[in-house]
Amino acid sequence: MVAIGFDVGGTNVRGVALERGSATPLATLRSKTEANGDVLVETIVEVTNGLMAQLRVVDDTVTLDAVGLGIAALMDANGIFRYAPNIPGVYDYPLVDRVIERLGVPVIADNDATTATWAEAKFGAGVGYEHMAFVALGTGIGTGFVLGGKLHRGAHGYAGESGHITIERGGPEHITGARGPWEYFASGNGLGMLARDWAANGRLDSAIELAGSVDAILGEHVNELVDARVPEVEPLIAEFSESVAVGMADLVYVLDPEIIVLGGGLVGLGEMLRSKVEAALAVRILGRNYRPEVPVMLAKLGPRAGAIGAGALAFDLT
Amino acid sequence: MVAIGFDVGGTNVRGVALERGSATPLATLRSKTEANGDVLVETIVEVTNGLMAQLRVVDDTVTLDAVGLGIAALMDANGIFRYAPNIPGVYDYPLVDRVIERLGVPVIADNDATTATWAEAKFGAGVGYEHMAFVALGTGIGTGFVLGGKLHRGAHGYAGESGHITIERGGPEHITGARGPWEYFASGNGLGMLARDWAANGRLDSAIELAGSVDAILGEHVNELVDARVPEVEPLIAEFSESVAVGMADLVYVLDPEIIVLGGGLVGLGEMLRSKVEAALAVRILGRNYRPEVPVMLAKLGPRAGAIGAGALAFDLT
Repeated sequence: MVAIGFDVGGTNVRGVALERGSATPLATLRSKTEANGDVLVETIVEVTNGLMAQLRVVDDTVTLDAVGLGIAALMDANGIFRYAPNIPGVYDYPLVDRVIERLGVPVIADNDATTATWAEAKFGAGVGYEHMAFVALGTGIGTGFVLGGKLHRGAHGYAGESGHITIERGGPEHITGARGPWEYFASGNGLGMLARDWAANGRLDSAIELAGSVDAILGEHVNELVDARVPEVEPLIAEFSESVAVGMADLVYVLDPEIIVLGGGLVGLGEMLRSKVEAALAVRILGRNYRPEVPVMLAKLGPRAGAIGAGALAFDLT
Repeated sequence: MVAIGFDVGGTNVRGVALERGSATPLATLRSKTEANGDVLVETIVEVTNGLMAQLRVVDDTVTLDAVGLGIAALMDANGIFRYAPNIPGVYDYPLVDRVIERLGVPVIADNDATTATWAEAKFGAGVGYEHMAFVALGTGIGTGFVLGGKLHRGAHGYAGESGHITIERGGPEHITGARGPWEYFASGNGLGMLARDWAANGRLDSAIELAGSVDAILGEHVNELVDARVPEVEPLIAEFSESVAVGMADLVYVLDPEIIVLGGGLVGLGEMLRSKVEAALAVRILGRNYRPEVPVMLAKLGPRAGAIGAGALAFDLT
């Protein structure tokens, strides 16, 4: 009675073997992502078989119940991999059907931010809340929503593409071609860009020391400065948090969540980021004397959330 | 077996008497809105009694089942009227409890855009769709959502305050104090402002002729120009539609609706507005080769939608 949950990103395919009702993997296995539909199916099959082989060393009666796929792609409600900016070469590929053909068990697929949302709702920071917004700050911004206790997928399975919302019309052009979207400013890439800008203006010398030059500064250097409690990094995080809060306020106005869970790679910035985002959000919300503040909480499940949530969703198929 | 639905705006209290499953009022009655909680309750009671008296002329056995209130206010999930920019003097008032005390029937209250959303979903342009976004362009912008066939109210009853979403950070200051919110540009007030700007720059002489001066131009003059098919108004509507589409695209990214229903006073601009908004929205959405276009439809129920939806929601209490 095991489900395998996957997180398929631009670089890695991560698989976790889970028991029902648990977020603690029995086994984990990682492989490379190949930008080809048939090869991707092969990788998923190999990782599944590898994980099951690991489990059978301990218990040779264990059976595979279902597979859940969290994919960094526009996944439609019929299990079709429509397209993914970071997995070029796979378009309109019937991923779910192909994996079902190979493994002979029920398979479900959703966007990886959607599956991570479900993991945090069921096992992480969102436990006990009926209305939750999950905001993952990584290379871009991924979001997902639990509304009335249920995962919100939307009419076609495309809900939660909130990184694209426009916060600065006529603003700078993002790699997507859009002008001034939220993720241009408030993602890990946005933080790196802001840090380089500050460094070029003499406001973040410690980052230049770490990285070697202004142009070499990345989000991870900011992470190091936060860990080292370098004083000049705090106002940088404050300015960055304002950008995070602009889009979060939009989500609060549209959806009215009880809490927002902050996930993705930037969670490593920890309490400094969380507290500043929460404060910036509270100040932005109109009528704030007449509505409760929305708490911002750090995600608890780390980088495996996408795979864990996919596995949890897979159990719902059985 | 009758429910009374109300739409309480800044100026008028409109009541409609409805039978279950019908959007066609048996009777309607209107009164003035007074910015005082106790007087507002009195008005609601008087309109209810007036409507029931009308019905009893025809059938003296008719009974009142329930009352639904659609209010242009932040209404919380406990029936408390928190506050309303256009009904000053009423704050944190237990409206639902007070109306129940007076009328002795079940009472429900929601924001008026929320109740209008339900009316359009159940009886209007949204019939047959499980995921719908309703966008009312009036003095401001009100929105509401049907997700998975259900009205989405949010954790506290405040969902759908989308007029406040930021589309131009650092942009012009709105009457709310926020900078660059969607409704600054894409509401009826936004259209009037845009028309005055065009007129001042010699691009809309026909509006100056109608209104008497640049400063006297209002949204309703634009309406007349559209009805008269004045050629110079079409590019104005096209530019305005771009602003409408920015916020709609944000809703599409967040929620993934099947359709968007365009309501509110600006629906009078008709097909010219609808088609331009739909086209501008389609162009904005990223990955549009991999996802269906979102149709934009005109609302069908007109200015009574808020009261009709409130009445329909009231029947759910019985």
